[in-house]
Amino acid sequence: MQADDLAATNDVIIDHLSSDIELIPEVARHLIVAGGKRLRPLICLAAADICGASGPRPLFLAGAVELIHAATLLHDDVVDDSALRRGLKTANIVFGNKESVLVGDFLFARAFALMVKTGSLDVLDILSRASCTIAEGEVLQLTTEADLDTSRSTYINVVTAKTAALFEAAARAGAMVAGASEEDADALGRYGLNFGIAYQMVDDTLDYEGQADNIGKSAGDDFREGKMTLPVIHAIARARDDEERAFWARTIGEREQTAGDFERAQGLIARDNLIDVCLGEARDYAARAAEALEGLRDTPLKRTLEDLALSSAARQA
Amino acid sequence: MQADDLAATNDVIIDHLSSDIELIPEVARHLIVAGGKRLRPLICLAAADICGASGPRPLFLAGAVELIHAATLLHDDVVDDSALRRGLKTANIVFGNKESVLVGDFLFARAFALMVKTGSLDVLDILSRASCTIAEGEVLQLTTEADLDTSRSTYINVVTAKTAALFEAAARAGAMVAGASEEDADALGRYGLNFGIAYQMVDDTLDYEGQADNIGKSAGDDFREGKMTLPVIHAIARARDDEERAFWARTIGEREQTAGDFERAQGLIARDNLIDVCLGEARDYAARAAEALEGLRDTPLKRTLEDLALSSAARQA
Repeated sequence: MQADDLAATNDVIIDHLSSDIELIPEVARHLIVAGGKRLRPLICLAAADICGASGPRPLFLAGAVELIHAATLLHDDVVDDSALRRGLKTANIVFGNKESVLVGDFLFARAFALMVKTGSLDVLDILSRASCTIAEGEVLQLTTEADLDTSRSTYINVVTAKTAALFEAAARAGAMVAGASEEDADALGRYGLNFGIAYQMVDDTLDYEGQADNIGKSAGDDFREGKMTLPVIHAIARARDDEERAFWARTIGEREQTAGDFERAQGLIARDNLIDVCLGEARDYAARAAEALEGLRDTPLKRTLEDLALSSAARQA
Repeated sequence: MQADDLAATNDVIIDHLSSDIELIPEVARHLIVAGGKRLRPLICLAAADICGASGPRPLFLAGAVELIHAATLLHDDVVDDSALRRGLKTANIVFGNKESVLVGDFLFARAFALMVKTGSLDVLDILSRASCTIAEGEVLQLTTEADLDTSRSTYINVVTAKTAALFEAAARAGAMVAGASEEDADALGRYGLNFGIAYQMVDDTLDYEGQADNIGKSAGDDFREGKMTLPVIHAIARARDDEERAFWARTIGEREQTAGDFERAQGLIARDNLIDVCLGEARDYAARAAEALEGLRDTPLKRTLEDLALSSAARQA
């Protein structure tokens, strides 16, 4: 991987937003050009590099992975009725829900057109399956919304499907385009999977800690939507009396919320140190991600991947 | 193509609706199992057969094409806020908009996973590009809604992208999996393209003639949504006075509609025989579709394709 491969991937992405229908690049650029850490392309490019890739195929793949991610964000914001992402108004607010659904579809299709350029059916197999899994995770999350009985294990299933599956696919497909051994591809897949779980756990946890500015989206979004994320699952399990249980049943179960409810939820979570508990769980997954890399050839980018995983889960602990 | 290939394609489709998340096959089956003419799979299978295909690859391809179609229908009904399709309540009404968006995403991803089974990057190239074009057509249609200045040529662009592109891709990809010559693949692509335009024109025209029962969706849907379809474009061009122009400006341009407006629109369209005019234009495209087949080897399925195109445009004339 060259130092400027991430910049080159960015160029690939921008190139593939083009369309005669002007509204399409306008909506897409609002989301993609304005922000994003390009974490999934980075994982993909690093995996390819560790496995000895050369040529432009990893760039096409990395671009495609980011386009799939962008498509899911556009649709998620419609489904969640979100108003803020990466510190900006969401596309559904600026352009409309219809526009976000259709431009999401466009980006998803463009991602597959871009993958064809890698010339690898393996890549298309991995990413099409991962895309199925993402949609399954989103639907599962929808069915657990407001369901106070949602277990930690169901939460892990949601997170694995909706977030970690694409991290896993990015890493594994990156290895594949480099012609990696099955063993190395599995190791990188395991890295992606565990890092993805850690990453989403941190995100869900900080939604109960941060200000809007901290995480670039509206803090309390998950609470407002009745999402059964890890801090809430723990908090409900540790409710001390009927009044507390009634609070969660009303705010999350019935989504009947009034001023001060989010602050009370934050207070209950803070009382039992649940931010630390959740970030600790995330660190366990991050550690597994780092361990998965052990058998791979030692390169600067391997250490980058290690650091990425470990630092993400440490970011507020 | 065997007599039971369409049934076998149906089995492939049903198989690929499966998911551990029960809501997914439930939503998908509501749309797919309940109805649909399987026109695109038929075109695909017939094209493959005319070009001498054998084996299961055309079935995978035909199934994938129908899944893409189903995904677009789920999203279209959300975007158009439709309540009725194929004589049944739409999935967005029965299950919700969020569910329709996410299950549409799932079906789209599953379609690409199924295409991988054909082992043909050409197929994935054709269908991923067609899927981009479909999304572009939907966005273009959205931008022309309520825009009284929309020209016939823009309308043709919308129809070509949102409908005919998938007909074309189904026919062309069917030829490709059969190892057809470029000439034959082009001919079948031309068939699909022209048939698709004719097919959508007929559909748009009958929305101003039929009852809900006739076409299995709510008659007048396009009118209510302010869609600039062919009958309206012609009617606006032939408005006889300012009062008529004001009628169209209010009902389509402003989407301010009251009881009796749809009947008045139907009356204006009938007065100038615009149903016949539009169906006549559709017949021209259908004739071009039939002509495209001329150089291909003469088989029963070639005649089936001819009949399909010619009869669809003749269905109410």
